Amino acid sequence: MIVEMRTGATQEEVDSVVQKVKSFGMDVQLNVGTDKTVVAILGGNTGQLSTDLFAVMPGVESVTRIMKPYKLASREVKPKDTTVNIKGVQVGGKRIVVMAGPCAVESEEQLAEAARAVKEAGASILRGGAFKPRTSPFSFQGLEEVGLELLAKVKKRFDIPIITEVVDPHDVDMIAKVADILQIGTRNMQNFALLTAAGKSKRPVVLKRAFSCTITEWLTAADYLLAEGNKNVILCERGIRTFEDSTRFSLDLSAIPVIKKSSHLPVIVDPSHATGHYSLVPAMAKAAVAAGADGLLIEVHPNPEEALVDGLQSLTPSNFAKLMGELRVIAEAVGRYI
Amino acid sequence: MIVEMRTGATQEEVDSVVQKVKSFGMDVQLNVGTDKTVVAILGGNTGQLSTDLFAVMPGVESVTRIMKPYKLASREVKPKDTTVNIKGVQVGGKRIVVMAGPCAVESEEQLAEAARAVKEAGASILRGGAFKPRTSPFSFQGLEEVGLELLAKVKKRFDIPIITEVVDPHDVDMIAKVADILQIGTRNMQNFALLTAAGKSKRPVVLKRAFSCTITEWLTAADYLLAEGNKNVILCERGIRTFEDSTRFSLDLSAIPVIKKSSHLPVIVDPSHATGHYSLVPAMAKAAVAAGADGLLIEVHPNPEEALVDGLQSLTPSNFAKLMGELRVIAEAVGRYI
Amino acid sequence: MIVEMRTGATQEEVDSVVQKVKSFGMDVQLNVGTDKTVVAILGGNTGQLSTDLFAVMPGVESVTRIMKPYKLASREVKPKDTTVNIKGVQVGGKRIVVMAGPCAVESEEQLAEAARAVKEAGASILRGGAFKPRTSPFSFQGLEEVGLELLAKVKKRFDIPIITEVVDPHDVDMIAKVADILQIGTRNMQNFALLTAAGKSKRPVVLKRAFSCTITEWLTAADYLLAEGNKNVILCERGIRTFEDSTRFSLDLSAIPVIKKSSHLPVIVDPSHATGHYSLVPAMAKAAVAAGADGLLIEVHPNPEEALVDGLQSLTPSNFAKLMGELRVIAEAVGRYI
Amino acid sequence: MIVEMRTGATQEEVDSVVQKVKSFGMDVQLNVGTDKTVVAILGGNTGQLSTDLFAVMPGVESVTRIMKPYKLASREVKPKDTTVNIKGVQVGGKRIVVMAGPCAVESEEQLAEAARAVKEAGASILRGGAFKPRTSPFSFQGLEEVGLELLAKVKKRFDIPIITEVVDPHDVDMIAKVADILQIGTRNMQNFALLTAAGKSKRPVVLKRAFSCTITEWLTAADYLLAEGNKNVILCERGIRTFEDSTRFSLDLSAIPVIKKSSHLPVIVDPSHATGHYSLVPAMAKAAVAAGADGLLIEVHPNPEEALVDGLQSLTPSNFAKLMGELRVIAEAVGRYI
Repeated sequence: MIVEMRTGATQEEVDSVVQKVKSFGMDVQLNVGTDKTVVAILGGNTGQLSTDLFAVMPGVESVTRIMKPYKLASREVKPKDTTVNIKGVQVGGKRIVVMAGPCAVESEEQLAEAARAVKEAGASILRGGAFKPRTSPFSFQGLEEVGLELLAKVKKRFDIPIITEVVDPHDVDMIAKVADILQIGTRNMQNFALLTAAGKSKRPVVLKRAFSCTITEWLTAADYLLAEGNKNVILCERGIRTFEDSTRFSLDLSAIPVIKKSSHLPVIVDPSHATGHYSLVPAMAKAAVAAGADGLLIEVHPNPEEALVDGLQSLTPSNFAKLMGELRVIAEAVGRYI
Repeated sequence: MIVEMRTGATQEEVDSVVQKVKSFGMDVQLNVGTDKTVVAILGGNTGQLSTDLFAVMPGVESVTRIMKPYKLASREVKPKDTTVNIKGVQVGGKRIVVMAGPCAVESEEQLAEAARAVKEAGASILRGGAFKPRTSPFSFQGLEEVGLELLAKVKKRFDIPIITEVVDPHDVDMIAKVADILQIGTRNMQNFALLTAAGKSKRPVVLKRAFSCTITEWLTAADYLLAEGNKNVILCERGIRTFEDSTRFSLDLSAIPVIKKSSHLPVIVDPSHATGHYSLVPAMAKAAVAAGADGLLIEVHPNPEEALVDGLQSLTPSNFAKLMGELRVIAEAVGRYI
Repeated sequence: MIVEMRTGATQEEVDSVVQKVKSFGMDVQLNVGTDKTVVAILGGNTGQLSTDLFAVMPGVESVTRIMKPYKLASREVKPKDTTVNIKGVQVGGKRIVVMAGPCAVESEEQLAEAARAVKEAGASILRGGAFKPRTSPFSFQGLEEVGLELLAKVKKRFDIPIITEVVDPHDVDMIAKVADILQIGTRNMQNFALLTAAGKSKRPVVLKRAFSCTITEWLTAADYLLAEGNKNVILCERGIRTFEDSTRFSLDLSAIPVIKKSSHLPVIVDPSHATGHYSLVPAMAKAAVAAGADGLLIEVHPNPEEALVDGLQSLTPSNFAKLMGELRVIAEAVGRYI
Repeated sequence: MIVEMRTGATQEEVDSVVQKVKSFGMDVQLNVGTDKTVVAILGGNTGQLSTDLFAVMPGVESVTRIMKPYKLASREVKPKDTTVNIKGVQVGGKRIVVMAGPCAVESEEQLAEAARAVKEAGASILRGGAFKPRTSPFSFQGLEEVGLELLAKVKKRFDIPIITEVVDPHDVDMIAKVADILQIGTRNMQNFALLTAAGKSKRPVVLKRAFSCTITEWLTAADYLLAEGNKNVILCERGIRTFEDSTRFSLDLSAIPVIKKSSHLPVIVDPSHATGHYSLVPAMAKAAVAAGADGLLIEVHPNPEEALVDGLQSLTPSNFAKLMGELRVIAEAVGRYI
């Protein structure tokens, strides 16, 4: 951490900063320039120190953080790639793992049709939401417990692992009984009570990026899961909010190589929620694989026109099968497979 | 809702759209242009209908929502201003209500000192966080239950209503026993489980705007509280995330006149979290009052240099007292008082 | 265009709107709902009409544009893909066209080395800036006329077409004598004097997206070039400004499929300026090709450590050659070639 | 400037960085931590040095700029407030200077009516655009030279200084003959050719903030004007682009206290373009004055319904007169006058 003193800061002001640093058991080095004094705070734990502690002191111009605020998610702490095992499917290895299915579980028939279609096309994991975070209280809120039972049933019938969302910390245990992967949605990435509960469950978690948070904040949120001893964390880029309005969100594919540099965690991409339109999903799914994503989360609905939620961004089974064919070629072109 | 058909859409495609509209019990009017057919969907409930239902149909170019998705928070539903009564203090009337205090409760002494200072300077409500949503698991997380007890004690001693944050839906009842106002923070604005619980409690709520959400989404979140029968909803603008990096967030003061047009709910402003720096708080507090805010939420700490959380954005008691003097003059200039 | 009247608008107010529409020679259709009257304005030219004309009238609640504001760049006006011919190199066909070279022309030696390297590795076009738009007046501003002469010399020696930036409308003719493609940079996308001059020159233009403009605004800016009769327009996505700070800008690859739907113009991608870091360029270049880009604009410097401008985002010749090998495989995987 | 070396960087890598720093004639101080070495570059001119120069070197993890990139606009260089004299009207003193008038000059009658109205209501300067930067080539582009003549005529008749926009560097001299203030619009803030020409003219300039640029970039753009010896620079905040869509832009009033801290230049506010709606202008104009703005730029049109450009954001003369009355009270409340 670098504390820059104001031009004309007094010796007393500099001394106070130095003493405060030492009170935290850290070392300091002074750079006395012609204009300004700069205080460098040394030590491995400055990432967890608030910059405000020094910024508020008299004579201080600015405080710059050099260490990242996240720790357990960083590649410095764990240089080797993490792989997460979902009943024999490795996320984070050479295989591109495709998770697909409807946004919301609507009925047994709908879910079963979707499961059959995505499995046949080569997806490894079935997605389907029972508890839905909806922006309006007057929208369909998901089938909740009933939806969870349908997921359990279809999972067994088609022998396919499932991923489903959890929105309340107190539902984690109930959902973890059925789900192979807990999904934490974009609006809950900084719901710290939920992160702590999901961390305690030790169940694999897909942590979606908040559509308004930086990669640094995302990895810091992952620290909440890892700090509880849950090593099975998969990140999921799903688009960020920008001024562009021709897509629902702006898919930030640069996040993939950035995360591969800074973190050991696997990262997948959800092109369906990002673009908001089925016609844009194939291009972005292919781009994600080319950029180095470890997997994809894609919405597929047996009949998008009848979907209760997000029909416009869902692929039909036949479009999904066609896309899987194209993805296999791209995966090969980057030395991987589906 | 306006459904625009593609150039060259067939009669069958237009008919399908019309039939789907009618299946929802709504009326339709067709505009057959030279190039394009436009289908207008009529009826008072189209705000709650998903645009996807039509956007996904063959031959459809785009679907435009005209009704707002929120309902109970809208001025159309309730033309008269809402006022929220906090033990005799009216939020939303002629008085500008100032809520002030430390970001986090740290000790009885710190809280008591803050309470004395803000009350003396003319604040009506004491703020203080016991349960803190912190972005890193390695940061100070608040005193939790102990903090709540201190709030209860100081509230009684200084006879001042308090506002404190709630982060877990299952803590609402416990916190509502002590707090006169429940604060829902920016990261929880779309934590729908928490909104529902806070709505059920009927306790006055300050709903902070998510730093990444539009005013429309904010009012739609308020609908969650109102839909549970809780009419005591106060909105709080606290800055949105933009590319500008000289302030922590960008305070969106235009939200005030926009909300006054579209909603009946009172709106207050938090200049401390928005700017992130005590030296910017006075200018933005004054601007908020001039723009028509119904109140302010300001961080005051007896000793900002020692603050465990957000010291840099906290005013000292003497700076706060000075600001209150300036605010009184501005309040008068816009026909109000503090 | 859809004009929604306020609840309770009077008959006179509705009539005024209808008369104003008719005064522009357009037709109208009225939707008289139970709550509200909605006026649909019909006709092919409503995209060029300002919404303000109606929004400002008494009794009007809101005005929604349905037609896009751009015209000549739209696929509706010209359904067939445009290809731009650069001395036999087709941009917009099956070939992925790679333009590469240094950000700024620094010396004959530097430019010649870069030209040799990128040509050997398979690039079709050499990039190099002589006139540089620099954010500070105290930064290196480019070699200007001298740089232009070096470009002419190296172009001849290596027999490779060149692209270079133009920043002043009055330089267009001079630069068009040397450049095979005029580059209009991100900060000039809405410099309408410059667009008009570049349009008049009829020289092929690469129009970079303003880092703060929507795709709709970008295509509307392209209309300025097309309106002057210059059909040789190539769009270039180069990253948009968002809150994310781990990359210099956020590369919006979704722009590629969006443009392919809405416009006939070819689109290329600049991963160097977008990411700002050479280590992120390969992943994003591959992703761009997988997403359907028609070409790439990549910074290559014989010695990035010595670069006067943007060294951090430049590839070395050997890294560029390696990337070209990887891009060939991806191009093939999407049915194209380099 | 702080260069942080990677964990495990070699002694040779550190030495190279040190040598490069010394080659620029600057001093260095090494902080050898347990994990990492940090190199602090000392000297007063590091703000003008590119961070890339070091970021690109082997063994470097990151480079952090501490000095601001702007120089002449900074308060460190000139601690005393600048005031700009417009024919006896001081911008940057105790008086709040109001500039008002139509967005575009349409006819002599319209301009004269506007001039009379704004002068009567107490505005000091008349605004009116002759050269308009319009996003579509099919929109009204301004009266150009004819508009300029009308401005000259009305200026003389009503004896009121005028401000008008310049969009092409080669028009500066012609426009400077008529205009008392040159306006550089938001889309031209980084049109460096235009900035240089306007700087050379020595005529007072209102430099609008680019809607996508940070305050730091804005002040760096002001350096272009100041570097040519033009000291008459007035900054104008006019809204930034964010995700919020209920206003045309988001007015960033925090920019006012931030600029007052970092720069000596006066700053005014344009609430009309920011909000895009006349009904929001009064609240934001009052807030701007309360926040410390030195002036306002407000659109007033004798007949907004007939305006060719931006009618929706224009006040009528009577609404403007009413607002001026309210502003006088606010100005007084902050110790100033209009």
